Amino acid sequence: MQVQLNSGERIDDLIINDYKIIQSTQAFRFSLDAVLLAHFAYIRRQAIAVDLGTGSGVIALLLAARNIKSVIGIEIDPLLADMASRSVTLNEVGSIVSIINADMRRLQGVLPAGKYDLVVSNPPYRRSGTGKISKNDKIINSRHEISVSLAEVIAAAKYLLKYRGRLALIHLPERLPEIFYQMHMQGIEPKRMRIVHSYVDRKACLAMIEGILGGKSGLEIMPPLVIYQQNGIYNDEIQKYYIKHSDDGSR
Amino acid sequence: MQVQLNSGERIDDLIINDYKIIQSTQAFRFSLDAVLLAHFAYIRRQAIAVDLGTGSGVIALLLAARNIKSVIGIEIDPLLADMASRSVTLNEVGSIVSIINADMRRLQGVLPAGKYDLVVSNPPYRRSGTGKISKNDKIINSRHEISVSLAEVIAAAKYLLKYRGRLALIHLPERLPEIFYQMHMQGIEPKRMRIVHSYVDRKACLAMIEGILGGKSGLEIMPPLVIYQQNGIYNDEIQKYYIKHSDDGSR
Repeated sequence: MQVQLNSGERIDDLIINDYKIIQSTQAFRFSLDAVLLAHFAYIRRQAIAVDLGTGSGVIALLLAARNIKSVIGIEIDPLLADMASRSVTLNEVGSIVSIINADMRRLQGVLPAGKYDLVVSNPPYRRSGTGKISKNDKIINSRHEISVSLAEVIAAAKYLLKYRGRLALIHLPERLPEIFYQMHMQGIEPKRMRIVHSYVDRKACLAMIEGILGGKSGLEIMPPLVIYQQNGIYNDEIQKYYIKHSDDGSR
Repeated sequence: MQVQLNSGERIDDLIINDYKIIQSTQAFRFSLDAVLLAHFAYIRRQAIAVDLGTGSGVIALLLAARNIKSVIGIEIDPLLADMASRSVTLNEVGSIVSIINADMRRLQGVLPAGKYDLVVSNPPYRRSGTGKISKNDKIINSRHEISVSLAEVIAAAKYLLKYRGRLALIHLPERLPEIFYQMHMQGIEPKRMRIVHSYVDRKACLAMIEGILGGKSGLEIMPPLVIYQQNGIYNDEIQKYYIKHSDDGSR
């Protein structure tokens, strides 16, 4: 399938399922975070999902590769949403993945409430007003909470999820208490967590949290996810993410 | 130093600093948890500390071995408090460690407010009404929240800590969201956490959390603490806990 590339865009290999992805050299490019989250998320049979702040659409495409029934990517930036849509076309997964250009803070009338099995999000990591601000608008949106706060991401998930549906987030360890707090405020109980370390003897670089709407309290912390072996190459588990999937079921 | 042993009591080796500890065969005996917490706690120079629910006094003794200036162990059970006091005598550390038979929910008039650098606690792990209840009163107190809830432990810490003082807890991973929540409610910000796994590929068995009264938000998750090597012997880090200390400063 041929698609049009705009200026500053290029096609990269997603490495998984022979998928390709269009990325902008000016926007935030997908990184290992997206791959980790797409594999952390628990996918029930016939699950329908929403990816909040899909950006280039990478997580939505990765969920399609994991045989999700359908996934909708929400993206506030019209140019990014258009780019993600062309990646969907490029991979011929339009029957599974849809991209909607919308603001996740205003989903009423855009998507139905209480319908989805799974919501995933790799939200902006830094609080507005902290850290270095990029001069580039698109990078600002994906790194900083200019368009959306953590509380708003979790409120949007609450709106979308059916009872006992799951929210899977990846974020910085430093925001973990706030994530738990905001989930609690929305009735989404943290049930499963995996901490990511670059090396086994380094402090955590990322945390992945799964909450269940209406779940009972009781968190399981999975084995640490260590990215690199001591020689600097990916650990076996990460390497396994980069193969063609049928359905690994995960967990 | 000779001390009297009551019926059902015996003297065990603390392995650290040639310390001994009196334990009751009918009460909960100290385990690795206490050793882990005593080493996780950050000890400032000249720090004064309180151990909430000290039981046999093990954590208080271990903090003395780590060269804390002074530590007070609070224990609600008069027989356990008396036993812990005799362990203090046995080790001749009465100038550092004191044991007080008191209820941590009623500390006013017992200890001053806002005076302590460090509060540690290895509180009961199970909520009252969950899990198997032991027929033995002393074991019930240390395993189940009969005498004290998690919220009450953290409220007692808040009462004792000076501004920017630290609370170090060890607890089950499943209670982590609640620990963060209760700390937040008391103005104690979770700042440092270490997750404990028996083996590197197993889910977590324990979590250690340090909060700072009046601290800014921002949690650091340390490297995972893995107890056993694949051959079932203690990892180097755990083995190092069992040597004579001068002052390791920790962290």
